Amino acid sequence: MGLIDQTVDAIEPASEEWRARATERIAQLTMPPRALGRLLEVAEQVVAVTRTLTPPTERKAVIVMAGDHGVAEEGVSAFPQEVTGQMVHNFAAGGAGINVLARAVGARVTVIDVGVKSDLTALVESGGIQDRRVAPGTANMAVGPAMTREQAEQAVCAGIEAVLQEHERGLDLLGTGDMGIANTTPSSAVAAALIGCDVDDVIGRGTGIDDERLAHKGDVIRRALEVNRPDPADAVDVLAKVGGFEIGAIAGMVLAAASLRVPVLVDGFISSAGALVAAGICPESRHYMIASHCSAEAGHRRVMEALELEPLLDLGFRLGEGTGGAVAMHLVECAVRILTEMATFGEAGVAEKGA
Amino acid sequence: MGLIDQTVDAIEPASEEWRARATERIAQLTMPPRALGRLLEVAEQVVAVTRTLTPPTERKAVIVMAGDHGVAEEGVSAFPQEVTGQMVHNFAAGGAGINVLARAVGARVTVIDVGVKSDLTALVESGGIQDRRVAPGTANMAVGPAMTREQAEQAVCAGIEAVLQEHERGLDLLGTGDMGIANTTPSSAVAAALIGCDVDDVIGRGTGIDDERLAHKGDVIRRALEVNRPDPADAVDVLAKVGGFEIGAIAGMVLAAASLRVPVLVDGFISSAGALVAAGICPESRHYMIASHCSAEAGHRRVMEALELEPLLDLGFRLGEGTGGAVAMHLVECAVRILTEMATFGEAGVAEKGA
Repeated sequence: MGLIDQTVDAIEPASEEWRARATERIAQLTMPPRALGRLLEVAEQVVAVTRTLTPPTERKAVIVMAGDHGVAEEGVSAFPQEVTGQMVHNFAAGGAGINVLARAVGARVTVIDVGVKSDLTALVESGGIQDRRVAPGTANMAVGPAMTREQAEQAVCAGIEAVLQEHERGLDLLGTGDMGIANTTPSSAVAAALIGCDVDDVIGRGTGIDDERLAHKGDVIRRALEVNRPDPADAVDVLAKVGGFEIGAIAGMVLAAASLRVPVLVDGFISSAGALVAAGICPESRHYMIASHCSAEAGHRRVMEALELEPLLDLGFRLGEGTGGAVAMHLVECAVRILTEMATFGEAGVAEKGA
Repeated sequence: MGLIDQTVDAIEPASEEWRARATERIAQLTMPPRALGRLLEVAEQVVAVTRTLTPPTERKAVIVMAGDHGVAEEGVSAFPQEVTGQMVHNFAAGGAGINVLARAVGARVTVIDVGVKSDLTALVESGGIQDRRVAPGTANMAVGPAMTREQAEQAVCAGIEAVLQEHERGLDLLGTGDMGIANTTPSSAVAAALIGCDVDDVIGRGTGIDDERLAHKGDVIRRALEVNRPDPADAVDVLAKVGGFEIGAIAGMVLAAASLRVPVLVDGFISSAGALVAAGICPESRHYMIASHCSAEAGHRRVMEALELEPLLDLGFRLGEGTGGAVAMHLVECAVRILTEMATFGEAGVAEKGA
């Protein structure tokens, strides 16, 4: 049995019994009924997937998957392709947004090359990043499949293996991150194919393209879907034909986290495309997903709806890298601490709601 | 000159020059333009009010102001009045929601009795809380003024003095908190009077009252406004006639924070009523306010609009105590760290947006 099947086999649905125990404890805490709203739902979810009333949250990690995209040659991004590799250097040096926001919440950042075009050997050798390269960038999906099925599986396995390795260091909460110039384009293609919706419902301006380029981007995605005809019932086929290495790796991360009963914070638009692929491979993996924020990228909400997730934050982020997930980790930590540290009416000698 | 006038005199508007410097630096950071949305606006605001590009955020405090309300005897709350004092004990013991969420963000919690009905002498003597009592609860505003003008000023001064004292311990970020059974009722009355809107636009279910009691609460507030006829041009008059001691103290906290150039996280509905009073006394104090969250209490959004504030979080909280402000402190810290720790395009050798 391959690693993907093995991982999927280990995924159990969230425990409704444990969720009910969390709900029961929350009802006894010294506050009016459900007065901390969404935080309480998060606490219940974490209990339901970790199956303990005292889930740990200290050991946090964000894994940033970096890859390049052949479709960049169609001129769909505002940034040149070499920025992917440059930003990986920035991650390794600790200077990017994700480094700052992960530090602020006490999370480790692991950066993985799953298919960057630039040569990053020096960074791998210095230990700054990990090498799980599938190929130096995908092929241009506008003219043929972005990758082979084998490469797609390899990308998913890269994500699984990265999480297994991270888990050995201790892992209570995981955040997904991405870097890859032009990667909103395959993400939109993956979303349109898997949701079965119109391309226009799931495209946006990425790093900031104008109206003309946005229209062009839509055309490129439609062409990619026509040329490749991905099978919506086969998420790996969709990933192979119109996806990206980092999208596949994120799908693998989500599956691995679910198999290990680790709650996973799904970041913005690219991570959500990865989460869609994971849900396509194993629907129960959704139970382990916490939607961290609603991206400013048009179409992200549509993907969230398809995953039946309600983002915790709405701060106009459109950066990726795992930044939204890192910020939302604090909310998950708060949710769990409410459950574990807050006094009950009985303990505190506080009268409950009157007549 | 009295303490209130002295404090107001020291309040300067936010510096647009410093805001522009923050904007300039943000444009150089390694991300697409404005890709961290609201966080960047918060960073700019903090720079504009602290007048430095490296504002400190380590020293954080939430001050919880507790008071009782004569109007509770009209049966407007779901909880009995003794819960105010019981919850103050819970705060002092570290078991309440605010204690948990403040700990999670590394903020101190200071609890102040500004007019609780129960005897809290033992807690004051043990150092668990501070005594700045105006009176053992306000009078019932449904039959006459909640307090005298002198008492209203005394409540505002209690808030100012508390912040001055907290500032001596080191204070980079302040959060406002409240406790007082029935205090959504005076908060709604204050909001309706100062905004000049319909009572129904600014009332909600508080700790969870039913339809019948909600209608009754509206009637009580309308009666209080009719009986007392507060002058909307005189915020202290409004506070005296239909407010509460903790609402006045929160107004004082906001004014003091502004005078000290300390950004202040305004919590939910009750804190917003206090912020309205502060803005009535000194409109520039608004520049120092950061709206932490949108309360589930109906009417909170109307108050936010009146203050021209856009809450950072929307998590369905309706607890008060400063809980929303404590959670949002992490966002403010993230915002500042992005500004101070993130690499620029130049530093990181990353290409800027292409043609």
